[in-house]
Amino acid sequence: MVSVAIIGASGMIGRTLAQTLIARGRLDELFLSDIRSSDIGGDGVHWVTGDAADPETIGLLVGFEPDVIFHVAATAMGQADSDFAIGYHINFDTVRTTVEAIRIAGNNYCPRLVHASSIGVYGAPFPALIDEAARPRPDSSYGTQKLMSEAIIADYARMGFLDGICLRLPTIAVRPGQATHGNSGFFSNIIREPLEGRRALLPASDDVRHWLASPETAVAQLIHAANIDGRIAPEARALVMPGISLTVEVLLSALAERGGEDLLSLIDRSQPPIYGPQDFPACFSAKTARKMGFPLLEEKAVDFIDGFLRHRFKA
Amino acid sequence: MVSVAIIGASGMIGRTLAQTLIARGRLDELFLSDIRSSDIGGDGVHWVTGDAADPETIGLLVGFEPDVIFHVAATAMGQADSDFAIGYHINFDTVRTTVEAIRIAGNNYCPRLVHASSIGVYGAPFPALIDEAARPRPDSSYGTQKLMSEAIIADYARMGFLDGICLRLPTIAVRPGQATHGNSGFFSNIIREPLEGRRALLPASDDVRHWLASPETAVAQLIHAANIDGRIAPEARALVMPGISLTVEVLLSALAERGGEDLLSLIDRSQPPIYGPQDFPACFSAKTARKMGFPLLEEKAVDFIDGFLRHRFKA
Repeated sequence: MVSVAIIGASGMIGRTLAQTLIARGRLDELFLSDIRSSDIGGDGVHWVTGDAADPETIGLLVGFEPDVIFHVAATAMGQADSDFAIGYHINFDTVRTTVEAIRIAGNNYCPRLVHASSIGVYGAPFPALIDEAARPRPDSSYGTQKLMSEAIIADYARMGFLDGICLRLPTIAVRPGQATHGNSGFFSNIIREPLEGRRALLPASDDVRHWLASPETAVAQLIHAANIDGRIAPEARALVMPGISLTVEVLLSALAERGGEDLLSLIDRSQPPIYGPQDFPACFSAKTARKMGFPLLEEKAVDFIDGFLRHRFKA
Repeated sequence: MVSVAIIGASGMIGRTLAQTLIARGRLDELFLSDIRSSDIGGDGVHWVTGDAADPETIGLLVGFEPDVIFHVAATAMGQADSDFAIGYHINFDTVRTTVEAIRIAGNNYCPRLVHASSIGVYGAPFPALIDEAARPRPDSSYGTQKLMSEAIIADYARMGFLDGICLRLPTIAVRPGQATHGNSGFFSNIIREPLEGRRALLPASDDVRHWLASPETAVAQLIHAANIDGRIAPEARALVMPGISLTVEVLLSALAERGGEDLLSLIDRSQPPIYGPQDFPACFSAKTARKMGFPLLEEKAVDFIDGFLRHRFKA
């Protein structure tokens, strides 16, 4: 009997994660939780809807004692910084409520908790290569909330209440759905929008380099974390995930290669770039995660374009 | 008109801080807050009693818009780790309630917030010298709570809601009052108890080396932080404070030097030591804090004995 819970199951990552787990078909029970349920369902799939910062909602979910709990509820960096209180509520309070619900469940219940953290825990100034000795110093509320979540999960793990692991996910591209503004959303916009025939604002210079992975890679990494044998080692409780270091220029070349040069005319450069190379972390060593076998499904820039097209035509 | 608030004013540090500020006589208003008021009072001294994690209590305090708020409410490492929920409540929730009360006060109110953090944010394994590039990785709930508090204060400061600074205070010796058990309490016990004619359990080997400062030094450092001109630089928002690196052996020699060799017979070595040198951080560079002029009132081990005796006879 294997049971899994996903907190944030209606979000971008949570939805793909749920679909992937159902498609694999190795689960007896899948508990999905979010403010609103989605169309995902089937045998052994149960929804617990409500605010994940509410102890009653999460207490109910944790009461089923799933073997693995994925916490992928989050609001993106843009909203966390503009909608200050909501950012703390979604990105931190839901984590704290989850770990506390697990603790008070008692009964020797000690699930694997897999948390979607972010490379956003690192702040400027960024060295060219960020290795594992680097000290996370967030320069955003989003990154702060993720760092606080990592800290409280590590403490609850040290106390033996849960077996936690936090994946510092790369920036996800191509995010499905609408274009998002602010921060790293443009890495998705400049691929998705032209491929859909729409214009995309490019607020960065072409030499901006960043650490990217697809939604499918993020989901594969989360599932890998759930399947690690034995207890997570203390030094592996927060890990930068493998990604690819790509410039805007290389991404746009890949877009032209797959979609034709014409698509580049949909890139809107009418406003002077507000982001330069110093504004994003360019590259991470991700040494421990590689050693632990965390997957990365992309090898080069065109894979991001192909991945988006594959899912667009599937959807 | 200068006004100051102390959250945790009935605690070990808060009490001495309040007395010191009153004795200096440069304040117009002093707002003291704790669960229970103490005998400290006088012209311009106001008590706001209540739980510092309660938004109403702290909202009332912050409503007076003090220029400086000292947050020195804490429970020691021993209790934070044994009384799990209380540790988070006192060491983290009170900080979050404070920063949030300041934020929602709005009105361009942006006080200097001086928070008593701790070298407990660093966890084992400890290098011989901990410099400022070292990454804090707590190995206690207490240290986790302090690190989370530092993170949220830095974020609220970055957003311009407050001007925060967190002092990673050395272990305080000699703590007044009763002997405390667990963790670093013995550094105080082995001085205080023999000087009071009582036996003191020594749970550590003689070669254990640790980073110490007196309560008077901690208070002087907090006051120094309140008086720094201009806004605190982002890289100075969490600073290890100057202290002295001393071994148990050297402390006991100093005790014998001041109180006589006989006192050493009150050191109880009947149980095998549970702490060795690897269990405590031995020495910090504290470079930035030294450069910024943070004071240290002790020069050698006997100063800790003399400081205790001076205050015992004063009290």
